[in-house]
Parts: sequence; structure tokens; C-alpha cells
Amino acid sequence: MSPVATIDDLPPLEHAGRTDRVRARLDVAALIVTEPHDIRWLTGFRGSTGWVVLLPDRTLLITDRRYGERAAAETAPADDVEVVVGTDRPDLRARLVAALAGVGRVGAQASHLSHAVWEDWAVDLPLEPVDGAVAAERRSKDRGEIARIELAARIADRALAEVAPRLGETPTELDVRHELEYLMRRFGAEGPSYDTIVASGPEHAARPHHGAERRTITEGDTVVIDVGALVDGYHSDMTRSYVIGTVSPRQQEIYDLVATAQAAGLAAVGPGVATRDVDAACRAVFAAAGFADWYLHATGHGVGLQIHEEPFHAPTSTAELLLGDVVTVEPGLYRAGFGGVRIEDLVEVTPSGQRTLTETPKDAPCLPSPPTT
Amino acid sequence: MSPVATIDDLPPLEHAGRTDRVRARLDVAALIVTEPHDIRWLTGFRGSTGWVVLLPDRTLLITDRRYGERAAAETAPADDVEVVVGTDRPDLRARLVAALAGVGRVGAQASHLSHAVWEDWAVDLPLEPVDGAVAAERRSKDRGEIARIELAARIADRALAEVAPRLGETPTELDVRHELEYLMRRFGAEGPSYDTIVASGPEHAARPHHGAERRTITEGDTVVIDVGALVDGYHSDMTRSYVIGTVSPRQQEIYDLVATAQAAGLAAVGPGVATRDVDAACRAVFAAAGFADWYLHATGHGVGLQIHEEPFHAPTSTAELLLGDVVTVEPGLYRAGFGGVRIEDLVEVTPSGQRTLTETPKDAPCLPSPPTT
Repeated sequence: MSPVATIDDLPPLEHAGRTDRVRARLDVAALIVTEPHDIRWLTGFRGSTGWVVLLPDRTLLITDRRYGERAAAETAPADDVEVVVGTDRPDLRARLVAALAGVGRVGAQASHLSHAVWEDWAVDLPLEPVDGAVAAERRSKDRGEIARIELAARIADRALAEVAPRLGETPTELDVRHELEYLMRRFGAEGPSYDTIVASGPEHAARPHHGAERRTITEGDTVVIDVGALVDGYHSDMTRSYVIGTVSPRQQEIYDLVATAQAAGLAAVGPGVATRDVDAACRAVFAAAGFADWYLHATGHGVGLQIHEEPFHAPTSTAELLLGDVVTVEPGLYRAGFGGVRIEDLVEVTPSGQRTLTETPKDAPCLPSPPTT
Repeated sequence: MSPVATIDDLPPLEHAGRTDRVRARLDVAALIVTEPHDIRWLTGFRGSTGWVVLLPDRTLLITDRRYGERAAAETAPADDVEVVVGTDRPDLRARLVAALAGVGRVGAQASHLSHAVWEDWAVDLPLEPVDGAVAAERRSKDRGEIARIELAARIADRALAEVAPRLGETPTELDVRHELEYLMRRFGAEGPSYDTIVASGPEHAARPHHGAERRTITEGDTVVIDVGALVDGYHSDMTRSYVIGTVSPRQQEIYDLVATAQAAGLAAVGPGVATRDVDAACRAVFAAAGFADWYLHATGHGVGLQIHEEPFHAPTSTAELLLGDVVTVEPGLYRAGFGGVRIEDLVEVTPSGQRTLTETPKDAPCLPSPPTT
């Protein structure tokens, strides 16, 4: 089992210009970036301790001695980042305050930074809440980012292709999860994108947020598998649903309804489209069939360095899709006693609408019956 | 490969009394608990969205509809917890404010809560920073907690026992990591306790925070493996160090020095001991041998629902060990060009000193030579 591809085969990440694009969004003189995914996207730095300071004319990464050598190496591809290495927390704080002395209004990420740290810094810095400036720039993915997400999707496709035909022979949900995650690592993933969901039978499959337990997968079950891989920090996300053994008329009806809704959602995706309209396209199919109250969640979300990031396809969302957004479209129907069906693809928003990155077939819920024992 | 044991074989977690023990620490009328591990420890609830409100005479868990059924089931073993189910964020906030109306001074976890949420709640609630009250009570583990940590340690022991003898035959660090994590799951772990470290050779093994890469493990390498398992939310933590092939005199010298320091650290552990004295016991061995500057980190930390929690064995620590603390003792020596050696055990603080929970042998760094090819 060899990797599907390696990162070295992919186009590089395009770090150049990122710090300036964020600067252009600011109405403060400087921004302290503390959210780790934002820091990684801006500078390449992956350590757990570090703050980025966007000054008008330069960018600092303040970190501690454990990460000094690594910070210099990891930030090399980014715009000029000056690595400032401190010894301990008080020293790091002193360096932060010194770097921002006299610069004017200073933004900080109030939705990420703890209140305790905010209050401590505010003693010496004129802090203002500035949230979302980096997240907004992170939405439109560059070629290197798309390639990583696509490779992650391909790895999950390949793992699911090995595991799905044997679903009826695999003892428990947890065994299926472990097998999928083992295969994704073997195929070159850093790990799973999130805890793989394997939800089977009338109760578990009826819970959208089920994990994977020691329940034995059984003839007649619906099985919802939600699986993604992680490649160079980038996530993929996909769901497929199965029936073990003969598909009942009710199971076929629900499956077809979800497939129709998902197709409607995919058809709605395109640049300039309101994200709530993607959600509405799926919801309308369910409502017309009388299944509105079987749909328990929103229709999708952005995917990148985080598994859930901007934008979100929810009824209350106000965002519009952008070229280069990578989003899920994932309607589902759930009812205790029946089980559940969800179909989820990961797509890139393109000038003509969307390009689907997940390739696992989704045309039918049927699987071979398990062997009789 | 069957599980080492299952959770059902273990003593139950003793939730009774936990909320009252935290109440006894407060000098405010009520506490809003938002840190997820604190919430799980207090109530059993494992969902990602929820706030616990400790009122003088009752305990609320405020969560949303996705988690309502689950919250009721998960909190059943705890002290009476009233589950309050809201619809969306504004509704959850309104329920929080209503529950605290007129109660007096309200504590909130300023080190965890974001500044943005704090400011929003502070409009309607007289918030005061209260950090550490739950963390302090979480330190002394009950029988059920110790049993889970011990089972996690046993699973990691067993996985390492399978993998270590074949280290010289395994191609890369990443392969070793994947094999260890696969085996731990097969032996009954929910997953690894953290990203397993497999650091080999003169450069990687010299970095205490190395992960695992595609580097081929080679004759003459030192190899540091830092591995733990997760069982019912509880972590284990262990490090062993190896030499591939013949052990050089220098490698033997460094190994023996780390083993001596680690034994000194273990001997120092006991109830009432200052955590900085455990650190000092290890550090003194290195200093006496002239290796003080090869020791790049602190000597240990508490382990429980979090892999790093109170107390910490660092030179600047002010804590004293308590009966029931579960802590690591993990000195190491690192130098680029040489590699590294770290030996780490996980121990329970007992009346007589400590009981070691990790059982993998640590008497020698030697491994069979790799097959010549």
C-alpha cells in the first residue's frame, strides 16, 4: 500500500501576498494574530506557541526557544517574516508590547483570545476586537491548497473503496472506523480529517453527530460513513450511506430523496450565490416530500486548514460563495427507528459552478448481503 | 487482537460530590463552567456545545437541541444535573442570563472563555474571573479514573512490546507511529493519547517536540518513542528510548545518565513534595555530570482528561503533590549530531510515594541489529 501521491508532487502553497491582503482589510494600524490556523496560513509556522504581529511595514512571529529553529525554517516560503524568539511568557509579552509601541490602534482576535490574556495585554496596548480578517482571506484557496484538499479527498475515496464492499463482513462500527483511518495513513494522509463517523442501524444512524461504537453492523441496517483525510494540514470531508443486504422500499425512498436533494444543492453552487440558497435548495426537496422535520442540520460548510470554516450553508447565513471557496454539500434525513441517510460531497467553487473533489460513487445504497453464518 | 480490557470491567467514575467540592472552593455565588474537560469531569457530558452553571443549590447544563437526548443520558451518573435545552445561540444566552438573575457575583473561566463572549455576557451578568477551581478538584483521581489511566498505560505497553523488537526492520518513523496507533486501537483504545512521537537519528531525536516523519530508521540511531493511549477520555503517557544495533560507549553513557536521573525523579515523588523538587532531582544528576544544557524541558506534568494538566514539574512551579495526582517523570538529554534519550513513566502519587502505571522495561537501550540487506 503506497501513498496515492506525496506533497512533493503538488504545486507549492502561494504564501506571497497573504500578509498584504490581510493588511488591506484592516482599519487598525496593526493586528495581533493568535488563532493557530490563521498563523499557519499567513506564515507557514505550525508550532503551538506563537503570535503573529502585522505591522504596517513588516511582519513579526513571536515565539519561544523551543520553536526558534523550526519557526525560521517553516516561515521561509512566506513573505518576509521576522522571527522574534523569547524565553518565557513574560519575555514574550514584553517583546509584543515593545513591537507595538506607538504604532496606534491595535487589533486582536477577540473571538479567539481568552479574556484573561486580553485584559493582561490591554494594560499596555490599545486593543480593539478585529475578528475574521484572516478568515475572510483564507476562503479562496490557491492552487497548492486545492491540490492538497483534492489529494486528501482522493485518499479518503481510496480507503472507502477498500472498506465499503466488506461492510457486511466487518464486525462493528469501530472496526470500520479503525480500518478506514489505518488505510488513509497508509495511503499518505497525516491522519483522519476528524473522528470518522460510522453510524449504523435504527438508532445510531439516526444521529447526525454519532461517532463509532462497538455496535455490530447488521443485515437491514442503514450505515452512514463520514470520512476525510488530512494532507499537509488541509482537510477533506465526504459522506456516503449504505444499506446492508436487501434494500427495503422505505430505505430506497429515503435514499432517493437525499440523492435528489444533494443534486439540487450541488446544482445551486456557484460564485455569487447566497450560501443560504444552497441550503434552501436541499431543504425544498425535503419539504415538498413531507420530510422537512427529518433534516436536523445545515447543508454545509467551508473546508481548508480547518474542517469547519467560513462560509456556512445555513438558513440564517448571509455569505455569498466566492471563486475558490471549497465547501461541502451534505443533506441528510434521520429518524430513530429508521436510521439515516446522508450524502456529502466536497466541491470547489468555479466560474461555471462547481467542481466535485470527492469521487466515490453515490448512485445506489445497495451492498452485498453479509455472509450467513 | 482483542482488547486488553473494556471499560465495563473497570470501577465506575465517582461523579457524586464533585459539584459540591467545587462549590466549596468558590467565593462567588455561582460559576459558569465553559472548559469542556471541566464540564465532562463535573457532569459526564461530552458534547462540544454546553455550559455548566453551578448555582448555590443546583446545577444546570445548558446545551442545544442536537445534544439534548445525549446530555440527559451522559449526565445521569452525576449529581442532579438539570439539562436545559435551547434552540440557538441567542436562546442559549437568554437561558443563561435568566438562570443567573439576581444570584449575586458570577464567576466565569477567564482563561478559557474568549474575550468576545465574555464582553457579550458581561452586558447582563456581573462576571468575575474564576480560574482553576475545577482544575484543582480534578487533580486527585478517584478509583475509576486511575483504572482508566492504568488501562490506557497497559494498552500502550502492549503496543510498544509488539513494535519495539522490530524497530530496526521498520522503514520509517511514520510507519512505527502508524503501527503503534493501529495496535492501540485494536487493543481497545479510543485512539492515541496524542500524536505519537517517533524521533530517530542525530537530528530528529535531538528535538524533544519532534513528531514522526518519513525518515528511515538506521543502524546506529537513537530512537525516542513517546506513546500513550486514550480510554474513556483518560490519557496515558510514556517514553522509551532505543539504539538500533550496537550501542556506542557515548550512547550507553547518555542512556545511563538519563536512567539515573529518571530514577532520582521517581524517588522524589510523594504527597506533599514540591513539584519543583522532582524537577530539581533530575536536573541535579545532569548538572553533576556536566550535561545541564542538554536538558531542554521540564520534568513532568499531570495527566487525566487532558494530556497536560495540573500539576507541572518545572523549576518555577509552586505546587505540591497530592495523593491521587497522576504525573509523568520524564527527563531527557538532547544534542544535534548525537540524537536524544528520554525515559518517561506515568505514576500515581500514593501514601508511600508513588506507584508506576507504565510497565514497559527501561533497563537497557539495546535492540537487535537490523537485518543486513
